[in-house]
Parts: sequence; C-alpha cells; structure tokens
Amino acid sequence: MLAYLQHEEDMIMKKYSEMSREELLTLKEELEKQFAEIKAQGLSLDMSRGKPSIDQLNLSMGMMDVLKSTDDLRCETGVDCRNYGVLDGIPEAKRLLGEMSEVDPDKIIIYGNSSLNVMFDTLARCMGTGVMGMEAWAKQGGIKFLCPVPGYDRHFKMTEYFGIEMINIPMSEDGPDMDMVEEYVKDPKVKGIWCVPKYSNPQGYTYSDATVKRFAALKPAAKDFRIFWDNAYSIHHLYDDNQDFLLEILDECEKAGNPDLVYKFTSTSKVSFPGSGIAAVAASKANLEDFKTSMVCQTIGHDKLNQLRHVRFFKDLNGLHEHMRKHAEILRPKFEMVLNVLDQELSGLGIGEWTKPHGGYFIAFDSLEGCAKAIVAKAKEAGVVMTGAGATYPYGKDPKDSNIRIAPSFPTVEDLAAAAKVFVVCVKLVSVEKLLAE
Amino acid sequence: MLAYLQHEEDMIMKKYSEMSREELLTLKEELEKQFAEIKAQGLSLDMSRGKPSIDQLNLSMGMMDVLKSTDDLRCETGVDCRNYGVLDGIPEAKRLLGEMSEVDPDKIIIYGNSSLNVMFDTLARCMGTGVMGMEAWAKQGGIKFLCPVPGYDRHFKMTEYFGIEMINIPMSEDGPDMDMVEEYVKDPKVKGIWCVPKYSNPQGYTYSDATVKRFAALKPAAKDFRIFWDNAYSIHHLYDDNQDFLLEILDECEKAGNPDLVYKFTSTSKVSFPGSGIAAVAASKANLEDFKTSMVCQTIGHDKLNQLRHVRFFKDLNGLHEHMRKHAEILRPKFEMVLNVLDQELSGLGIGEWTKPHGGYFIAFDSLEGCAKAIVAKAKEAGVVMTGAGATYPYGKDPKDSNIRIAPSFPTVEDLAAAAKVFVVCVKLVSVEKLLAE
Repeated sequence: MLAYLQHEEDMIMKKYSEMSREELLTLKEELEKQFAEIKAQGLSLDMSRGKPSIDQLNLSMGMMDVLKSTDDLRCETGVDCRNYGVLDGIPEAKRLLGEMSEVDPDKIIIYGNSSLNVMFDTLARCMGTGVMGMEAWAKQGGIKFLCPVPGYDRHFKMTEYFGIEMINIPMSEDGPDMDMVEEYVKDPKVKGIWCVPKYSNPQGYTYSDATVKRFAALKPAAKDFRIFWDNAYSIHHLYDDNQDFLLEILDECEKAGNPDLVYKFTSTSKVSFPGSGIAAVAASKANLEDFKTSMVCQTIGHDKLNQLRHVRFFKDLNGLHEHMRKHAEILRPKFEMVLNVLDQELSGLGIGEWTKPHGGYFIAFDSLEGCAKAIVAKAKEAGVVMTGAGATYPYGKDPKDSNIRIAPSFPTVEDLAAAAKVFVVCVKLVSVEKLLAE
Repeated sequence: MLAYLQHEEDMIMKKYSEMSREELLTLKEELEKQFAEIKAQGLSLDMSRGKPSIDQLNLSMGMMDVLKSTDDLRCETGVDCRNYGVLDGIPEAKRLLGEMSEVDPDKIIIYGNSSLNVMFDTLARCMGTGVMGMEAWAKQGGIKFLCPVPGYDRHFKMTEYFGIEMINIPMSEDGPDMDMVEEYVKDPKVKGIWCVPKYSNPQGYTYSDATVKRFAALKPAAKDFRIFWDNAYSIHHLYDDNQDFLLEILDECEKAGNPDLVYKFTSTSKVSFPGSGIAAVAASKANLEDFKTSMVCQTIGHDKLNQLRHVRFFKDLNGLHEHMRKHAEILRPKFEMVLNVLDQELSGLGIGEWTKPHGGYFIAFDSLEGCAKAIVAKAKEAGVVMTGAGATYPYGKDPKDSNIRIAPSFPTVEDLAAAAKVFVVCVKLVSVEKLLAE
C-alpha cells in the first residue's frame, strides 16, 4: 500500500504550482493509478466525527460504580439528590465546574447533559424574552451575530435556526480578527459573537492575551450584546509540556468594567461521557439572575445524581487534570499520525496548509481555493468520510471552498494512518486537476 | 392533643351556616383556644410539596447498581450509550415509555430529565418558530391558552412567562367544561389547552371517556391549536382494585380524524427519581418531525445512559406497575390519614369539600368562598406550610379564593395526622370568622 510513496520521491519537493503542464499530467496519471488502487481496497473509514474513542470512554467507566445503592446520596448541604429541587446545581458540582472554568462557584449555574442545549436555550431566551429586561431580539428584528470562521457547525446551525444573520470574521492563530469585531459591534443590530477560545474548533487555535483583552474591552453599541464563549476544550490538552493558556474572560471583563459582557459555557462532554455529562454557564451575577428568570419556569432542577456522580468520581481539578492526561495519551498518537502523514506527503507542495494544535479535537486543513468539496467527495468515493466541506462556515458556505475539518479522535491509529493516506492522495489529485484546469 | 375533639361533639353534626350568632361566637372562642394550644406546640410541618418521600425514593435505589463498570453499555441496536448520538432515544427506552404512555414506540421521542422542560421547550418552539411550518405564535400576537382550573401552577407560570393570555375553564369530576372548551376553540387566537387528564393536579380527577372523545373531536379554528396532554400520573394509582381508566388520546384523535391535535407528555419523575428520570413526548409522526426540527439544533442527544439505566431496572410495563404498587403502599396510608381527618372533623359542617382521588399526588380542598388565603395563612401561623392559596389558578388568582391543594406524599403518616388536625382547626376558625362577618 505504501509502494506509491516511492514513485513520488522525485517530485515531492517541487511545488505543484511550479510544475509544467507535462509534469502535472504525468503526476495526474500516477495519482489516478494510486486512487484506483485505494478505491479497490473498499475501505470504510471515518474522520468526520469529533467524538471520543471507545478507549477514551473506558477511562470513565469507574463512574458507573461511584454511586451505589448503599451510598448516601445527599449533597454536602444535606439535600437529597434523588428528589426535586436545587435549581442551579449542588454546591460541590458548582465548585468542580467552577474550578474547571476558572471562576468562583457562585458565578456558576449547573445545567443538564450538554452545553449545546444551554447555548440553544440561551439564544431562545434572548430571542423570545430579551437580555436583562431589554427588548426581545425577535421583536427588535434584523439582528446579527459575528461568526469567527472556520468555526463550529452547530453554533452556526442554531443561529440560522433562530433566523439571526451571520457575519464571517476570519480567524488567525491569535483568534478572530479583532479590528473587524470592534468595527462590527458599532452596529446596534449586532448582538453577539460565537467564540471557541481555546483549542478552537476546527483549527485548535487559542486566543492570545491581547485578543481576550480586546474582547473584554469591547464597547458594543447594543447593550444586549453578549460574547458566547464556548470553552469546550478548556482542559483538553494533548501535551503535558506544551499547553496553550487562555486568559480568564470573566475576570478580564470585570477588570475592563464590562462584567456582564460574556456568557461562558462549559461541559464534561469530552471529559466523562458525551451526552451523559454535566454542563455549566459561568457569568456575572446579573446575567445568572437573568438566566434564572427562564430556568425557574423551565425546570425544577437538573439531574443532581449525575452532578453527584461527577463530583464523587473526579473529586476536584486535580482529578480532572489527571483524567485528561489519560485522554491525551490516547489522542496524542492519533493527532501525530495524521500530522506526520500530512507533513510527509504534502510539505513543500504548496497545495495545502494545516494546523498543529496542542489540544482539542480537530485539525483544520486548508486546500487550494475551490478544492475542499472535491477533496471531500473524492475521499468519500475511496471510502473515507470527512466532515462535509463548508460545514465549518455559516450557512454551510465556505467562500473559498478550502477548509476541511479533520477529526482524528474516534478511529484507531491504524485506521487513521490509512485514512490520512487516502486523504493526501485526494488532496494531490484534486489539486493537480485544479491546476490543470486553470 | 385530641382533647378538643370531645368539646366539639355536640356541634359536629350542625352546619355552621345554620348556627346562631351566639353558637358561632361560642365556637369561635373554643376554636381560638384550640388554635392557641396548637400554636404553642411550635410545629414545623409541610403539606405543600408534591414530591415523593424518602421511603419512596428508597424503592428505586436498585437503579444505582444496575449499570456497572463491567457491563456492556450498548443499547439493543449496538449503539454505545456512553457516546454522542441517537437524537430521539434508544429503542428500548422508547418501548418502555411507549408502554407507559400506551402508544407505539415510533410515536415517542425520549427527552432529558423532566417533562416540564419538554413542555417549556415546546411552548418556546411554538412561540418562536410556530407549529408545523405555520406562523410563529409570537408573530401572530395576542394568543390565548385554555386552563382547566384548579390546575398545575407550573403550567400556568410558563404560559405567563411566554406572555400567553390564560382563560379559566372550570373542572368537574369528568374533566374540563367541554361546552366552554368547544366554544372557546372557535377563536383562532386560542392555541392550546393544558390538561392533566389522569389523577389531575390538584383534584385527582380523571377525564371521562366522553370528555376525551370530545377533546379528540375538537375542530379548533386555529390549525396550530394543540392539546398539551400532561399525563403525569398515568400509572400512579393508590389502589389495586380501584383505579381510574383514561382513554388513550392519540388513538382517539386518530379515530376522529385529528391525528395532529395533541402533544402527550410523560416522565418517570415520580416513578424513579424526580430530577433524575427520563421524559418523553408522544405525538403523531408529523408532530414528532416538527419537534425534531428544533431538537436537531438544540442537542446531539439526551442522556442515553440514564435511558439504559431505566430500562434495565424496570424492564417493561409489568416492572413499572409492580414498582408503582410499592409506591402506592407508601402513599395510600398518607392519603387515607388526611381524608380520615377531613371526614371526621369537617363532614356535615358545610364549610368545605374535598376530593378523594384514586391516584396521583394531591387532594383538593374547597373552603367557603373567600377563605382559602386566610386558612393557608392561619396554618402557617401554626407551623403548617400549605401550597399558597391561588397557586392552582392562572396568575395565582383564585376568583373564589377557595381552593387549597393538599400534598400528602412527603411527610410521615404521623406528621400528616398532626398537620391535618391543624388544618381542620384553621378551616373551622376561618369559616366561623367569615360567617360572623357576613
């Protein structure tokens, strides 16, 4: 299977764009042969889903035994976690997710099984009821959200669901283009921005200190503008010795005199079990009170037994970090396998760039303009499912048709090696076709 | 403490309204003495909360051991319940809650930890997005809901939260006044009705077959009218040999040619653990598709491990019924204790009426008009907390100020005996004061 690498040796250091038409045609023929060989293998591989592997899930199996029928199921204030009550979470869960979010427990509300749901509810409340007594967004009409791109497809989908206009903000290694953000928030119709500030989805970038400080210092025209700070990968490092650090946004907002500017979301979805974790919002007290105005009508309380289960299993921040190190040991070789294949096969060819994240769940690949859809389709033809091209942009429209999200977490290292090899052949082939068509 | 019963013997058969002013004054003096004695005891009792007692919660402790770290945590289709996915619930959970709801599993969506949350989300979707492609209720403006009274305070609270006008519909033993319902639904602004059709909150009434059939045959002017059928107490019987039966509404709606007329809600909140149960909606396929349009943006899926936990613990409908019989054994003596005190102390006095439910969580007491608030305040003064008077009506306003909800589930039988005795003294005293003031 690796035989074809040999054939390419001669060309590997030459940029495709510097090749002659003849060279490109020869290369195309060679790549088509490789592609046919791969296709004949009838592979069935998947690099599309940002979900933990079975090995990672097994790390949390102890959670199944941590609450037993013989245990006292009261929380530390004596409340019976088996019964109704405690709207905003048991104290020890607030402390645990407070530590994870780097905020005081009294700035935390514990929610149900996923932060995505909390974000949706938050948008629904802002739309239908408004922010802190201000007019409902739906009534104001014509409202807009800033969307750093590439970004998380589900953020964009729910924003579209609520009929909110989305504006692309380009990302760099330092975070969103803050000049643009500062300019756009002068428009009172701009009500929010989606941020995955640490190990961003899909690039794995972490916002720089300067970026965070500029966010905290924003002076939006709309008093009901909020930063939706989805800190989904706060403790999801790949390396012990090479971690990104993110300034704590609530603290920065307070220092900048904007304490109410941000909603910070977190969850244990990729810490314990996705779908069976606990989620939280961290925000100023005024914002949390606003959250509670709807919560009090929406629920008597979230699943306290699952809160207790998480606290008794992880105990504290050290427990969480120790656990995340085990996740990293499983994830690291997968990221490195994909990155190695990309390095070996595509370096110097000028047909793609990719990120090398220190954490999170994704690698972002940027192909030549206009090639992403074709590459993803080609990979599918060869039995490798990638995230749909365009998914990382609002309305599913990548204006350059170049971003592809690679999710290395779920497959085995062996499957990833195979899938990555398929991917690079597809990248090469589509790139050659594009250059020949120019 | 029971001494005062003796004093009253002479008067007990005489209606208060037939007493002379002198008799009432003598009685008042006697009751004030009794009240002072009770108050001096410094009681602290609570008949306000419709929540299971600790003994009831203990019935479900086996659930804590039913998923172990050594178990296979895949559902019957092989999906790993520890990971993302399965938007609408694992098949075996749909079957279990389908059986509980008396509908086909393919008419079920499994939700998170409480049906209250599902109802709120449903209202939010109807308000913000509309029903099955029709104009959003919020855009239509001026919309109204029918509210059988007395009813469940949290239904009314969330309806008020969304700014929906509420219209009282009187309840009888057969259910809501269907003449009124049929009349009101001619108004296209009337979009829904709240029903707790079995062992209703707070009266414990079960809708008659005729009522259910009239619901199913409704021809509302609004095509986006929906019956919100909160079947919260479907299997919550107090007696094995004296159970209420409720016609299955989805089936009746289909037969009547109105398959999309109803949303049916259920949960295991008072079956397993309140707050840590699983909830479901049963509805026509068209309605469920409509639910999924928002669900797919709102969540990747609900807590499948908790779904699995419930299925493995209860197994099937027989398991549920067997479990509910144990609940009944604990609840029955409590209901009977309160009812006995009411019978012994208030029968024939013409100062109150009360329901004698065969299931559910509440007894409804109707005092003389204009007395409920005073009775609840008096009871509080003597250390007995009752549900706030008016809570069972929209906007907290009981037009007759006469309905009081009694919740016998949580206290011990002994505490209930004491609390009920306090309650009847308060009823008597406030009634005498009212009659004297007339």
